[in-house]
Amino acid sequence: MIVELISVGTEILLGNIVNTNAAFLSEECAKLGLSCFYQTVVGDNEQRLEDTLKTALKRADIIILSGGLGPTKDDLTKETAAKVVNRQMYLHMASKENIRNIFKKRDFEITDNNWKQAMIPEDAIVVFNDNGTAPGVIIEEGKKSIILLPGPPNELIPMFTKSIIPYIRSIEPAVIFSETVKICGIGESKAETMVEDLIDEQTNPTIAPYAKTGEVHLRVTAKAENEEAAKKLIYPMVEELKNRFGNYIYTTREEVTLEQAVYELLLEKNLTISTVESCTGGLLSARLINVSGISDVFQSGYITYSNKAKSEILGIDPFLIKENGAVSNEVAMEMARRGALVSGADVIVAITGIAGPGGGTQEKPVGLVYIACNVCGHISLNEYHFSGNRAKIRETTVSAALTFLRKSILEYFSKITV
Amino acid sequence: MIVELISVGTEILLGNIVNTNAAFLSEECAKLGLSCFYQTVVGDNEQRLEDTLKTALKRADIIILSGGLGPTKDDLTKETAAKVVNRQMYLHMASKENIRNIFKKRDFEITDNNWKQAMIPEDAIVVFNDNGTAPGVIIEEGKKSIILLPGPPNELIPMFTKSIIPYIRSIEPAVIFSETVKICGIGESKAETMVEDLIDEQTNPTIAPYAKTGEVHLRVTAKAENEEAAKKLIYPMVEELKNRFGNYIYTTREEVTLEQAVYELLLEKNLTISTVESCTGGLLSARLINVSGISDVFQSGYITYSNKAKSEILGIDPFLIKENGAVSNEVAMEMARRGALVSGADVIVAITGIAGPGGGTQEKPVGLVYIACNVCGHISLNEYHFSGNRAKIRETTVSAALTFLRKSILEYFSKITV
Repeated sequence: MIVELISVGTEILLGNIVNTNAAFLSEECAKLGLSCFYQTVVGDNEQRLEDTLKTALKRADIIILSGGLGPTKDDLTKETAAKVVNRQMYLHMASKENIRNIFKKRDFEITDNNWKQAMIPEDAIVVFNDNGTAPGVIIEEGKKSIILLPGPPNELIPMFTKSIIPYIRSIEPAVIFSETVKICGIGESKAETMVEDLIDEQTNPTIAPYAKTGEVHLRVTAKAENEEAAKKLIYPMVEELKNRFGNYIYTTREEVTLEQAVYELLLEKNLTISTVESCTGGLLSARLINVSGISDVFQSGYITYSNKAKSEILGIDPFLIKENGAVSNEVAMEMARRGALVSGADVIVAITGIAGPGGGTQEKPVGLVYIACNVCGHISLNEYHFSGNRAKIRETTVSAALTFLRKSILEYFSKITV
Repeated sequence: MIVELISVGTEILLGNIVNTNAAFLSEECAKLGLSCFYQTVVGDNEQRLEDTLKTALKRADIIILSGGLGPTKDDLTKETAAKVVNRQMYLHMASKENIRNIFKKRDFEITDNNWKQAMIPEDAIVVFNDNGTAPGVIIEEGKKSIILLPGPPNELIPMFTKSIIPYIRSIEPAVIFSETVKICGIGESKAETMVEDLIDEQTNPTIAPYAKTGEVHLRVTAKAENEEAAKKLIYPMVEELKNRFGNYIYTTREEVTLEQAVYELLLEKNLTISTVESCTGGLLSARLINVSGISDVFQSGYITYSNKAKSEILGIDPFLIKENGAVSNEVAMEMARRGALVSGADVIVAITGIAGPGGGTQEKPVGLVYIACNVCGHISLNEYHFSGNRAKIRETTVSAALTFLRKSILEYFSKITV
């Protein structure tokens, strides 16, 4: 089936907000096995919205509109959709009740225009909104479905996940099932080369590579009569990928991020961690601490940005810094070594580098980064040459640090268990 | 003039990447005074791209296409655009030379398909790419302009800024000039109310509010015959906004971020800073360290996520934590006080809070955050109640901390100078 996305909102056309809803919906639709050929953004303008919806109805089976379900007179997605398929609107009592309850809870006064959000096109499916006053709406017109979703991502995402995915599964006869194999430590083009033969001969399941910063995700998707049959098709392919990528795979669970995988590895090995950061300035620890429950393993973080802080907090000999420069393998090693003494943690990741735009030399250019990992006293070091602006170099460094940390822990335990 | 954006790339339709280019281009076009009514995303498919471009040519004066200028046979934006306006392609020697130089520098071998990037539609303007092998192209067809830009943001953004903005200014007869007044510490709806009368009666200049996390940007835009005349129109409005918002304005310079403004304030007052973070786990220091040159003022950062780290690193009495909880005004104050002793910095920002999803109670719910600022021994404290998921609460906390830090420094110096 073909899906088309229409995002409604002048704030997107003005560049006020980034259209993350479209990215979310596209990825979810791809997972459901739908083909998406067009996405359109259109402002809060009745005529242009009508034209866009009519065009989409000619091209797609499912049209998902997001935004424009608010209470103001600028919000006209629902009214326009109803007009295009020639439906009357009526006051939907359960939605009205929901709006009343939400306002009561927030202790806000309801103004008359708020009831507009409870107006529904006749013969439509009303989708309850757990997180806001605008219900979602599904209008079925012949074999086509028009799905209207609220614009705020914290309303759209849960509504799509909870109600729209089951709806789409109910109208799409085949079951689509996918599993994601997440890889770190191998570049995108190398990973693609390693599965080129599988991609070339693929029919069902299919493999789609997704490049993330410092990671590659391979999504294996199968279409079948039921979930069990789909899983049966996926299983050998995932096993084949496991054979090819081995330890480079950090998870095959959709919801697990790289930092979550590192957290689980630390927990499994019963290790505590502290970070010692210079150029990344807290980005690495911030990413680790985005894992809920990280307090089980995360001890402390030291941001020793200045040379003075490196000496005072970590006790690194100022002469060592003077002789080799703050960005050097010697200083990185020492940050990892002394970090363990100061923090008492089992594992230390230490980062020093030149994020730019200033500070680079011919010998030590912008993008030069040293990362040292200390796992129970065994220190290993990597040198990197990254490119891009300051923000990009720092982001790439953090991904590389997580990848190197994971590798160092695995190697340490593979050695001691031999 | 009317502009329309077409983003080309199957990776956007699959949700592999978020379309940040469209947000960047939309905002820049709005600044140039162009009206944008539609944005479309279309895959690497000749027929669909051709249809989309033809539709756009009927609706807009300037069409900006991004992506699909790569060397592979999937990349067909340039070829399709040439076909639509009936132009032949030729090998552009200067672009060929640029490609050769880039490959030499990277020490990569050139394959034949790379020369495809040097093929240019006849009678087009070639736009040099400082950051990659794909040149930009401007095709003028009657009074319409088709602008082709490379997809990677680190190529598209500098090319647009350096070459396309001057080009658009040359074809748009009126001069558009805008200045942005950036505000922190006042919510979006309050800020809007404070300028409602100005917006209601606006003609030239116009005011457009943009909400960012923890900030509001008011963009004042004027259209005039020349830059001087435009500036003359803008000046009184900016002065009026300065009168209304006073110290809530942290800058009127487009390129200055809130962290940059804080950095400049610290530099001006000759103050050093250290951070002490719990729930934000390094995000605040990471944002400060995104400012190039921050080493002038940034001393060190302590991520004391666990209670143990709060006691061991900062020397906070474990009984104080036990009695009041780690998330309490008492502990926040003590983090700010002892942070100064441990780091020796003039200014400390200390953050403790519950980012969720776990850890909340009836009395101390998820989203409760305490921030304490210590400016030369004067400590002030704020309590916040934020909502959203873990990442959102942490991001909002960092913006609030920067705002509160700036306010605390200003207040300290307004008192000592009285």
